[in-house]
Amino acid sequence: MKAVVYEGARKVTVKEVPDARVEEPTDAVIRLTTTNICGSDLHMYEGRTSVEEGKVLGHENMGVVVATGDAVSEFKEGDRVSVPFNIACGFCKNCLTGWTSFCTRTNPTPGFDGAAYGYANMGPYDGGQAEYLRVPHADFNLLPLPQGTEHENDFTMLSDIFPTGWHGVVLSGLQPGDSVAVYGGGPVGLMAAHAAMLQGASKVFVVDRQADRLQLAKSIDAIAIDYGAGDPVEQILDATGGVGTDRGVEAVGFQAHDHSGDEHPEMVLDNLVKTVRTTGGIGVVGVYVPQDPGQDDPESAGRIGWDYGTFFTKGQSMGTGQAPVKRYNRQLRDLIIAGSDKPGFIVSHELGLDEAPGAYESFDQRRDGWTKVLLHP
Amino acid sequence: MKAVVYEGARKVTVKEVPDARVEEPTDAVIRLTTTNICGSDLHMYEGRTSVEEGKVLGHENMGVVVATGDAVSEFKEGDRVSVPFNIACGFCKNCLTGWTSFCTRTNPTPGFDGAAYGYANMGPYDGGQAEYLRVPHADFNLLPLPQGTEHENDFTMLSDIFPTGWHGVVLSGLQPGDSVAVYGGGPVGLMAAHAAMLQGASKVFVVDRQADRLQLAKSIDAIAIDYGAGDPVEQILDATGGVGTDRGVEAVGFQAHDHSGDEHPEMVLDNLVKTVRTTGGIGVVGVYVPQDPGQDDPESAGRIGWDYGTFFTKGQSMGTGQAPVKRYNRQLRDLIIAGSDKPGFIVSHELGLDEAPGAYESFDQRRDGWTKVLLHP
Amino acid sequence: MKAVVYEGARKVTVKEVPDARVEEPTDAVIRLTTTNICGSDLHMYEGRTSVEEGKVLGHENMGVVVATGDAVSEFKEGDRVSVPFNIACGFCKNCLTGWTSFCTRTNPTPGFDGAAYGYANMGPYDGGQAEYLRVPHADFNLLPLPQGTEHENDFTMLSDIFPTGWHGVVLSGLQPGDSVAVYGGGPVGLMAAHAAMLQGASKVFVVDRQADRLQLAKSIDAIAIDYGAGDPVEQILDATGGVGTDRGVEAVGFQAHDHSGDEHPEMVLDNLVKTVRTTGGIGVVGVYVPQDPGQDDPESAGRIGWDYGTFFTKGQSMGTGQAPVKRYNRQLRDLIIAGSDKPGFIVSHELGLDEAPGAYESFDQRRDGWTKVLLHP
Amino acid sequence: MKAVVYEGARKVTVKEVPDARVEEPTDAVIRLTTTNICGSDLHMYEGRTSVEEGKVLGHENMGVVVATGDAVSEFKEGDRVSVPFNIACGFCKNCLTGWTSFCTRTNPTPGFDGAAYGYANMGPYDGGQAEYLRVPHADFNLLPLPQGTEHENDFTMLSDIFPTGWHGVVLSGLQPGDSVAVYGGGPVGLMAAHAAMLQGASKVFVVDRQADRLQLAKSIDAIAIDYGAGDPVEQILDATGGVGTDRGVEAVGFQAHDHSGDEHPEMVLDNLVKTVRTTGGIGVVGVYVPQDPGQDDPESAGRIGWDYGTFFTKGQSMGTGQAPVKRYNRQLRDLIIAGSDKPGFIVSHELGLDEAPGAYESFDQRRDGWTKVLLHP
Repeated sequence: MKAVVYEGARKVTVKEVPDARVEEPTDAVIRLTTTNICGSDLHMYEGRTSVEEGKVLGHENMGVVVATGDAVSEFKEGDRVSVPFNIACGFCKNCLTGWTSFCTRTNPTPGFDGAAYGYANMGPYDGGQAEYLRVPHADFNLLPLPQGTEHENDFTMLSDIFPTGWHGVVLSGLQPGDSVAVYGGGPVGLMAAHAAMLQGASKVFVVDRQADRLQLAKSIDAIAIDYGAGDPVEQILDATGGVGTDRGVEAVGFQAHDHSGDEHPEMVLDNLVKTVRTTGGIGVVGVYVPQDPGQDDPESAGRIGWDYGTFFTKGQSMGTGQAPVKRYNRQLRDLIIAGSDKPGFIVSHELGLDEAPGAYESFDQRRDGWTKVLLHP
Repeated sequence: MKAVVYEGARKVTVKEVPDARVEEPTDAVIRLTTTNICGSDLHMYEGRTSVEEGKVLGHENMGVVVATGDAVSEFKEGDRVSVPFNIACGFCKNCLTGWTSFCTRTNPTPGFDGAAYGYANMGPYDGGQAEYLRVPHADFNLLPLPQGTEHENDFTMLSDIFPTGWHGVVLSGLQPGDSVAVYGGGPVGLMAAHAAMLQGASKVFVVDRQADRLQLAKSIDAIAIDYGAGDPVEQILDATGGVGTDRGVEAVGFQAHDHSGDEHPEMVLDNLVKTVRTTGGIGVVGVYVPQDPGQDDPESAGRIGWDYGTFFTKGQSMGTGQAPVKRYNRQLRDLIIAGSDKPGFIVSHELGLDEAPGAYESFDQRRDGWTKVLLHP
Repeated sequence: MKAVVYEGARKVTVKEVPDARVEEPTDAVIRLTTTNICGSDLHMYEGRTSVEEGKVLGHENMGVVVATGDAVSEFKEGDRVSVPFNIACGFCKNCLTGWTSFCTRTNPTPGFDGAAYGYANMGPYDGGQAEYLRVPHADFNLLPLPQGTEHENDFTMLSDIFPTGWHGVVLSGLQPGDSVAVYGGGPVGLMAAHAAMLQGASKVFVVDRQADRLQLAKSIDAIAIDYGAGDPVEQILDATGGVGTDRGVEAVGFQAHDHSGDEHPEMVLDNLVKTVRTTGGIGVVGVYVPQDPGQDDPESAGRIGWDYGTFFTKGQSMGTGQAPVKRYNRQLRDLIIAGSDKPGFIVSHELGLDEAPGAYESFDQRRDGWTKVLLHP
Repeated sequence: MKAVVYEGARKVTVKEVPDARVEEPTDAVIRLTTTNICGSDLHMYEGRTSVEEGKVLGHENMGVVVATGDAVSEFKEGDRVSVPFNIACGFCKNCLTGWTSFCTRTNPTPGFDGAAYGYANMGPYDGGQAEYLRVPHADFNLLPLPQGTEHENDFTMLSDIFPTGWHGVVLSGLQPGDSVAVYGGGPVGLMAAHAAMLQGASKVFVVDRQADRLQLAKSIDAIAIDYGAGDPVEQILDATGGVGTDRGVEAVGFQAHDHSGDEHPEMVLDNLVKTVRTTGGIGVVGVYVPQDPGQDDPESAGRIGWDYGTFFTKGQSMGTGQAPVKRYNRQLRDLIIAGSDKPGFIVSHELGLDEAPGAYESFDQRRDGWTKVLLHP
């Protein structure tokens, strides 16, 4: 089958690889109908992870079941499904408490809990930017979708970024009526803003600098804060009577850039501490790493000197980490079906699998208008 | 009246000051029966805060009502009460949501929410290491106690450290059956360990180096971890099958010392990240500050370079800040009355008010056996 | 001052009564700008309560502060405020845990916790269908509103029915993505449906028989179920694939009528048990009473033989009781100010105080189009 | 293999039946080491259910794995395990939200969610009062135990009654410091009382009439209330200053008897409404049924006329239904291993499989001292 393969820093190619197949009785194989390129794929693309060459990329997958193992009872050939990026067993302590993003059984990498398709350190699983994908523990992991092709561009957000944005808001502790500041207007940040609205936020700020992203934020009734036009903290404090927001969401990650383009991993954390009021909560779904092979001193990457003293003094709280997609994807699917929710509003490009290499390049350069790319294999 | 007064770094005296009196219709005045010296008083004593000279110290207070303002309806002369260290109005947004430790109305200091008796930056309120104490918003702030003198040494823990230790455990997200590591075996750490037991923890580790503290930890069936005898992280990982604990509590603060006595504010946070398993929670009640007048570069004190990358990668969460005493003190009082709970087990010294200066000195030097000092004015 | 006074079954008059005034240092007096007639006022109007003749009615009040006691520090003359129907002290055990609807101090009636303005069994407090109203514990009870007259018809819903509908949904345990059936399309039921939308419900059913109510339900994108056109349970099961809804809200009360107009207090509870799926939750804000002076056997009124066996077998849960308005009114005010929420959509009539007697009669007869009546004194 | 077989009202025999075996790739078969007789087995024994003759009884099972299907990856021959009485798939909507007691896939009986071993209406699964037991979805359902035989009589409580008692307390909403009244001092009631202690209750009342049960209640520091000696409501109100308890647990069920031995299904619910204070919560784990074949009018059995009007007026809440064992059994296992918890204190008899018929008879007659019977096949 054809697949998008990682071949070194800033090099992906589309080539023939062995077909995905049922390997365990609990497996299913799906034929991809849509598979997205994720901002976190760029960490690998840029050579800032230890991902091995030859890996098939792609963890935002949906499609149709084409084969199932003997132990699969809930799904059959022809079923339309969304595939959470987390590969989870369904019965370890973390899975049982709703933390499928930290499954203790599916990732054999020492020191890591949690597996994913086509991702550095997340286990030996190939990704879904391909014609077919093997899905372990299919009964547990797959989410059934209505047959047909309706809502395809909305449903494809269910595998990762919509639940991820939603999780960021949940980690922030948002309650109906709260105000929230989302730092980062990329796909995850926009999904977080969208999720905050659906969860009853009174005011949602989205901080970014790119015009296309700020425009999308406005399109969902969020308040766009252009940090190119002034200190975002001051802008938000001004808009909240000097008090700050009740909640904050980090949707940028360790590669945060200042105006001059320099990386400042502490920058967004510092801004959130200042933006959020006393006793407020912060949800962090932008990626931070313990080590960064792209830095001179990889080991120091995780030791970020942000303003922890003020964080404590304000009595703030913080939740972090990869989203457990299954905790949310069923409900979000139902909201899409009910029509109250259209997360596909962020889609900017729909391409064929062969166009993946160019798409990676454009997306990595954050070319204007390249908000979210879907591949339809 | 007589009171313990701060007169500069490492200098407190007992002297005459004007009597506490009813100033507002919602005030009460109490006669102190017991008032404790708190570890956090030592931050002021050591000259590492901006507290003004002449301040009466003491925020762990209990006693008997001697006067009330016209608007006080729930308390009358002769009532025995515990006084939460938080001074709260009872009707601002934070008070209404249970965060009396961050009352937005009672502290006029710019940039600070939350007031307390006799404490730096916490408003113009004198403390209770004195014969009498003025209590604002008495109907809201005071906790009624059974008349008499029974349980005095247990009830005196209700004004601060027992709720503070309890809050640390709550912030960690502990559920019955969870294991927890408490860093710091001082009064707050021991109260946290005790609270964890009462909340149904399966295993409670207490990390310290002082023999008297470790002995007290053992006396409540906690597992004492002597970090003088080896890396505490390794000891706890060994005792949990390499997995780590479900939860962690920070009860040390920014003045954490390593073996050689050097301060390492990042040390305990780093150890907690390693000790707690993926998806686990950390409650921080040890004090961290944005600025430290005791350092060459006061502004840098809050910017602590701890291992945030691993914190995120493990999907951990963290809650912080001063405890809202009222959220817990009624229930903890009832547990004391029911006899299932005796937090007074940590008391090492009961002294008169005049003995306060010597007690401060001994406690500050962490002399062996000086675990917790009560003053009975 | 002029006030609406209860003078016996189906008789209210507008007449002169002594002016409301500050009686305690914690009191405020407000001048009413809007005061609504509530469906629960009709229980008194119909003579089915023990309310004394001469009582000034009205518990849905808002207006402007005209006087304050010495101990009131947060409000001053001229402040625009909403008055929760609950009269709460702010410091009893129930108030401290968020249950201001069951304050243990403000209602001297033996056996009753919780006080209200102008209501049977809820204490000696006159209501606000008058020119002026005395508000006890004003700092705690009053909710500040933006100055001016904007949003008057939305803000007036904050004193009772919007928080009450919201509370019904909260008691049902609704989570985003859930479906919910609201029995009763009167003002509270419509507020519950509206609240469910704001809390992220995927499908909201509203069951009623009156065309004007069903039309209002449709206007907020709820699914109108006309029980005059067929069994509502069957209609909802059909619309949910036979599974039923995740949640249910009771907004009818013990005076539920069947098609022939007979009262069947068990009818709605039975329908909810059938409508809601296994493990689902039911929130009950329609009023049920232990005794009914309007029945031959008043004592038997509360002993309702509904299908409890099925309730248990389905593992359902149920929350009940009067809403603690303060738990929600600040957040709902902020949603109104943000513009995302317009609960005033149910207002059908705006009248002067003198028109109250006719309005009671029309509302009691459930005349078509009399959905919600506001009085502007 | 030998098994305890239901052969009609008040008749069970021990006889040869076909061996349990692996039927699906996700199955395991275990050899029973301990299997208990449950109070709810008596509903079947007394002929008050529709259970078919020939059914092997027994849903409180533990033992050692002897065979596994191809898809079972977590367990292997020789592993010691506890078997939750709920048979759950692990991936339906109810299982995913923690409600394994209402699995929508494993019970083919129309109208019923939730399956169990050897029980009326709970699916075609034979019970474990036998030499061997087939366990569906073994990876999900089995709980691993430490190898060996230690804690056998404590661990055997993990399959049903300890989690069931614990669930009753959780459904009541108990928080640390709360008081709670448990109606029913049988095995489930005693486990609820024990669970309440572990969850931090300040006062635990246990209401029963049998001396052996009251004695066991006292042995765990609960307050024994003998309803043979006076109205239990009055006794508990007296002991709580007239206020009542914060929480209540129903551990009796529809077969509640008054002093004269007559069944009064409304009796315990009425007592709980009176015993629990305003805003308090009630957890119901005693069994109520929609139909009772043992009554003249089976259909009316579930329509219980209890004092619902007072329940509403007091703003109480209620949770009900069979316990989802998996939500609790891992944590309770860890508490047993840690030594802080010994639920085996209620065991009165340990017998061989052949002694089951006599044990059923004695247990059904509630002979003094027959508190809890274990069978060791």
